[in-house]
Amino acid sequence: MYKTHQYQEENKQRFLDELFELLRIPSVSADSAYAKDVKTCAESVAENLKKSGLENVEICPTQGNPIVFGEKIIDKNLPTILVYGHYDVQPADPLELWETEPFEPVIKKTELHPDGAIFARGSADDKGQFFMHVKALESMINTQSLPCNVKVVIEGEEEVGSIHLGGFLEENKEKLACDVVVISDTHIFSNSVPTVTTGLRGLCYVEVEVTGANRDLHSGLYGGGVPNPINILSKMIASLIDDDGKITIKGFYDKVEELSANDRKELNKLPFDEETYKKSIGLREIQGEKGYNTLERTSIRPTLDVNGIWGGYTGEGAKTVIPSKAHAKISMRLVPDQDTEEIKRLFTEHFTSIAPKSVTVKVTPHHGGNAYVLPSSDSGYIAAKKAMDKTFGKETLPYRTGGSIPIVSLFEKTLGAKSVLMGFGLDTDAIHSPNEHYGLFNFYKGIETIPYFFQYYVDGK
Amino acid sequence: MYKTHQYQEENKQRFLDELFELLRIPSVSADSAYAKDVKTCAESVAENLKKSGLENVEICPTQGNPIVFGEKIIDKNLPTILVYGHYDVQPADPLELWETEPFEPVIKKTELHPDGAIFARGSADDKGQFFMHVKALESMINTQSLPCNVKVVIEGEEEVGSIHLGGFLEENKEKLACDVVVISDTHIFSNSVPTVTTGLRGLCYVEVEVTGANRDLHSGLYGGGVPNPINILSKMIASLIDDDGKITIKGFYDKVEELSANDRKELNKLPFDEETYKKSIGLREIQGEKGYNTLERTSIRPTLDVNGIWGGYTGEGAKTVIPSKAHAKISMRLVPDQDTEEIKRLFTEHFTSIAPKSVTVKVTPHHGGNAYVLPSSDSGYIAAKKAMDKTFGKETLPYRTGGSIPIVSLFEKTLGAKSVLMGFGLDTDAIHSPNEHYGLFNFYKGIETIPYFFQYYVDGK
Repeated sequence: MYKTHQYQEENKQRFLDELFELLRIPSVSADSAYAKDVKTCAESVAENLKKSGLENVEICPTQGNPIVFGEKIIDKNLPTILVYGHYDVQPADPLELWETEPFEPVIKKTELHPDGAIFARGSADDKGQFFMHVKALESMINTQSLPCNVKVVIEGEEEVGSIHLGGFLEENKEKLACDVVVISDTHIFSNSVPTVTTGLRGLCYVEVEVTGANRDLHSGLYGGGVPNPINILSKMIASLIDDDGKITIKGFYDKVEELSANDRKELNKLPFDEETYKKSIGLREIQGEKGYNTLERTSIRPTLDVNGIWGGYTGEGAKTVIPSKAHAKISMRLVPDQDTEEIKRLFTEHFTSIAPKSVTVKVTPHHGGNAYVLPSSDSGYIAAKKAMDKTFGKETLPYRTGGSIPIVSLFEKTLGAKSVLMGFGLDTDAIHSPNEHYGLFNFYKGIETIPYFFQYYVDGK
Repeated sequence: MYKTHQYQEENKQRFLDELFELLRIPSVSADSAYAKDVKTCAESVAENLKKSGLENVEICPTQGNPIVFGEKIIDKNLPTILVYGHYDVQPADPLELWETEPFEPVIKKTELHPDGAIFARGSADDKGQFFMHVKALESMINTQSLPCNVKVVIEGEEEVGSIHLGGFLEENKEKLACDVVVISDTHIFSNSVPTVTTGLRGLCYVEVEVTGANRDLHSGLYGGGVPNPINILSKMIASLIDDDGKITIKGFYDKVEELSANDRKELNKLPFDEETYKKSIGLREIQGEKGYNTLERTSIRPTLDVNGIWGGYTGEGAKTVIPSKAHAKISMRLVPDQDTEEIKRLFTEHFTSIAPKSVTVKVTPHHGGNAYVLPSSDSGYIAAKKAMDKTFGKETLPYRTGGSIPIVSLFEKTLGAKSVLMGFGLDTDAIHSPNEHYGLFNFYKGIETIPYFFQYYVDGK
């Protein structure tokens, strides 16, 4: 492994420069205005895969954004690791809150990143993270130390629910056959507490529309006499969570896995500090479901959050209008064994049932996925833990977190392979927020760790 | 009066063409992007006043949009009528719901306007209405039948709360001295039920901001562990109105005038038909404060409506964000003897008190004004009723409506003059909404009626 690491050290700056090139492409998948940039980004990813020494590199078209594929098969009798990542990014807005340009990466030091961090949309989620694999593969291939076969799948629709990945996997089962999937799209507990993510929450995301009158009305002439869709939507949203922080949708908790006392104890081993947490996001007080602490509320408990709301006049000044319509985007994070389709149905039934007769309600589903748990006996988990133990020089802990990567259950279903979630970000990296960043320490630590993961995985087989 | 009416008949088409010119200027006062158009509109109004035969026409600068003044003093011993109107208009958005261009007037027939109506932003509110006065004055002046002195004040900030009108009135008390103010910026009950507006609700308009964390957060990683400003704002808004439709702000109803059984009976003489009302705005069911009917809820009862709400991701697709901030614009319609300043204070205290400790709340006041009632013994009211009885050929009824024109109390305070609200619109004219329109019948009926009002007012003195 010495030669591989030496190669990495010698090419450090170039690895970073190449990542910067990728970060400059605004590959926002949620906004069709960026369709061209998404395409350009796919092409750039393909070029990078070729340059790393991968073969059969292809830009595979889908009904949506293309999926980039590449592989290096060295011996059919050896295990095959599939690397998954995504080249699309979240929208950058609200733009005015970025301290630097979202698509012009810069290095800045922060309290948690004294060696500097890369500030750019997608730096941590997920360009900076999948690119570690590309560079780790290049290091192994160029130093003749790749110990097994590798396949790489980098998609362009993760931030909008991986709409076409399922179909792609189905159609290419043989081509993508593998023993394990490795994904770096999560975070570690901290730079001094390495973790492998062993659980992820699922997601159910819907958009709701409440309609009152057939046109906007003057609030002076009509106010008091007609239903106001904003007031009504607010009331409906308010009723979805009770004073104990419990979600009121009928049947919502029916399939929620209750952790054993021992598992809760294990989870609470992580050195979580509430004061640091509050300080990092500028809160005086936190709140949440009664009977659970913050670590539990954000990992093993389901949630309901409004991600967006709009209706009426939102411009400068004052307009005295009762709008015809009000809208909200609402998402629920799910835990084992909740089913995203069932929750969608329960939400829709409940939300429709609580609407007063004076309005009509429409519920439109967005993407979703079920929760995921990786057992600590899994060989992929063991290899990842060992690799991180080695490069961090510390005991690596299992970590269940709140984010969703719906595709992990897809991989299990179509390819029969477990996913190892070996991310290197920090939860303070502001992914999905202005000023997203990714630590240089984390970027290089990832590149260093990945070859060990490959080696230990092969050794364990 | 025969010559005046004949003059009007002969110049009908020109009156309409001139109004169209005025409607083509997008004088939106709430949006600074239209500042230049607002100025152009003031100049056009001044030109129109000159053309009508008024003298000493001036575009009076203010700290905001200019106020246009003009007068015709024929004899200092005769009464003076002050005509008030406003040349600014509401924003046209949502633009996509307009069937024709908001600033390109067209005539179209509707069920309620079989003779045609002018479709354009500002056609009813208030360009089409104040322009009736300009043309009525022209008719009287050119036929030597103006029976008294007249002063005209057309301002450009009514839709944003007449911010600088108060100062202007204070500074020009002598110049604006008058016996009565006449305003056409309201509606009649219907084209077959003429009414004079004898009561208007007041207004208190605020903007609220709820802040949670110091940045937008990923709803997967943080969801469940942190306050969500949208969920919290929704809950706070929901709590402002109880299940009986009563506003829960402490002290809100303390000064509300309760109508006597007789006054309520009088009010309910208007031939209000709930089915027609529901049909006109496309509602299956209506709702409102318990113990009152629709006519009462929209005239003699105070209200609370959210006029706009926004927060989080509102673009295309799905973004899993917990925003740092959520906002709403909230207005309350007031009735005698509620005081707008007191209500603002009560709202702010209440709204701040119901916020959970995990968020911070900011309340910013917009414009406001108190309610207004014109007694049926007032000489201005009597003249208006007589004039409408004459031109409609029907008994004119007193009418209390829900809209606010905060400036009527300003006129009373600074000039000591009562305002006669002799509007000619219909409440279905979609003012403040897409497809605002003003009936040709109403436009010409107003021009016909105004000279009678002038004559009867002088006769009654």
